[in-house]
Amino acid sequence: MRQATHILGFDTHGQGLIEITRAVSRWTAGQHIEQGLLTLFCRHTSASLLIQENAAPEVRSDLEAWLARLAPESDAYAHDDEGPDDMPAHLRATLTGIQLSIPLIAGKLALGTWQGIYLFEHRRRPHRREIALHLIGD
Amino acid sequence: MRQATHILGFDTHGQGLIEITRAVSRWTAGQHIEQGLLTLFCRHTSASLLIQENAAPEVRSDLEAWLARLAPESDAYAHDDEGPDDMPAHLRATLTGIQLSIPLIAGKLALGTWQGIYLFEHRRRPHRREIALHLIGD
Amino acid sequence: MRQATHILGFDTHGQGLIEITRAVSRWTAGQHIEQGLLTLFCRHTSASLLIQENAAPEVRSDLEAWLARLAPESDAYAHDDEGPDDMPAHLRATLTGIQLSIPLIAGKLALGTWQGIYLFEHRRRPHRREIALHLIGD
Repeated sequence: MRQATHILGFDTHGQGLIEITRAVSRWTAGQHIEQGLLTLFCRHTSASLLIQENAAPEVRSDLEAWLARLAPESDAYAHDDEGPDDMPAHLRATLTGIQLSIPLIAGKLALGTWQGIYLFEHRRRPHRREIALHLIGD
Repeated sequence: MRQATHILGFDTHGQGLIEITRAVSRWTAGQHIEQGLLTLFCRHTSASLLIQENAAPEVRSDLEAWLARLAPESDAYAHDDEGPDDMPAHLRATLTGIQLSIPLIAGKLALGTWQGIYLFEHRRRPHRREIALHLIGD
Repeated sequence: MRQATHILGFDTHGQGLIEITRAVSRWTAGQHIEQGLLTLFCRHTSASLLIQENAAPEVRSDLEAWLARLAPESDAYAHDDEGPDDMPAHLRATLTGIQLSIPLIAGKLALGTWQGIYLFEHRRRPHRREIALHLIGD
């Protein structure tokens, strides 16, 4: 049994979903583990991690529009030092979650056919985001 | 230290919560691991995984009614090819999450007294759903 | 490779977020593992686990106020045996989640600079809450 850890960095360019399946799969494949568990952990509270459909792009735009209604910028928040998108970013990250663990079976992540891994940026301005990875298996 | 992986399949019959605690516990017990970590991963984006109270059934019906208000079928979505329940299914799965990891202590999943593991079907039509399982420990 | 498990207990005093980063880090440090994965699992369905900003306290009060609007006590619920805060507690715990896994890199939890680990009590009355911990690594 072995394990490996890594920090993946991504530059975001405003609110939205960035597919990171390829970057994550490439690092995982490089560890030469056949069976195991991969954990992704987003080191931020205004960006999140999400498994979502990777086919129809409308799923992602509908999701963004719905989150914008559920945690709107127009609400009054006590925490608004960094602008009106700051507190909604924390709320949207709370809803969608910041950690995922995915089994590795026969050398492949056990993602379903239509599942992609996404980094979800909730702030309007560009940010450097870090995802900590942990892989264990043999 | 050892590990085991498995795919559990379930047939769903419309929207609602299906308790899968017994099926999951049975597979886990069969691996003869005393201390470890069990991970469940739902291979879909319109069904989800949830720990919820296993006693009062009203908790589940209240939860379903609340999700139906939070992500209603009556909203206008760009993604509606598969019917009005398609996009709300993605939203409800996003809210409730698709992955769970549960410690195994002294040969038992560390679930609380009132906790059950549920597969949450968000589509109206029957589906075949797959849960990938990963267990590591000794 | 080694593993360790533990149950951490916390006394809560009504609704709100309790930072548990220090208690969790102290137990983890005592296991003398340099690289690994820590999993926290909340053994309840009306309390939850959350990574949230540990700097501005307004983030936490805004989060609580927003959850109170999203899953209000004033709604009519079928499940109300234990009072009007019972069912909203289940809904808020569902939204925020009850399980977290955090990589351990170079002897430290891979938390971001502004991330704290919180136990989120959703009931009005004091409760004894248990968090199951699992650590694996070397």
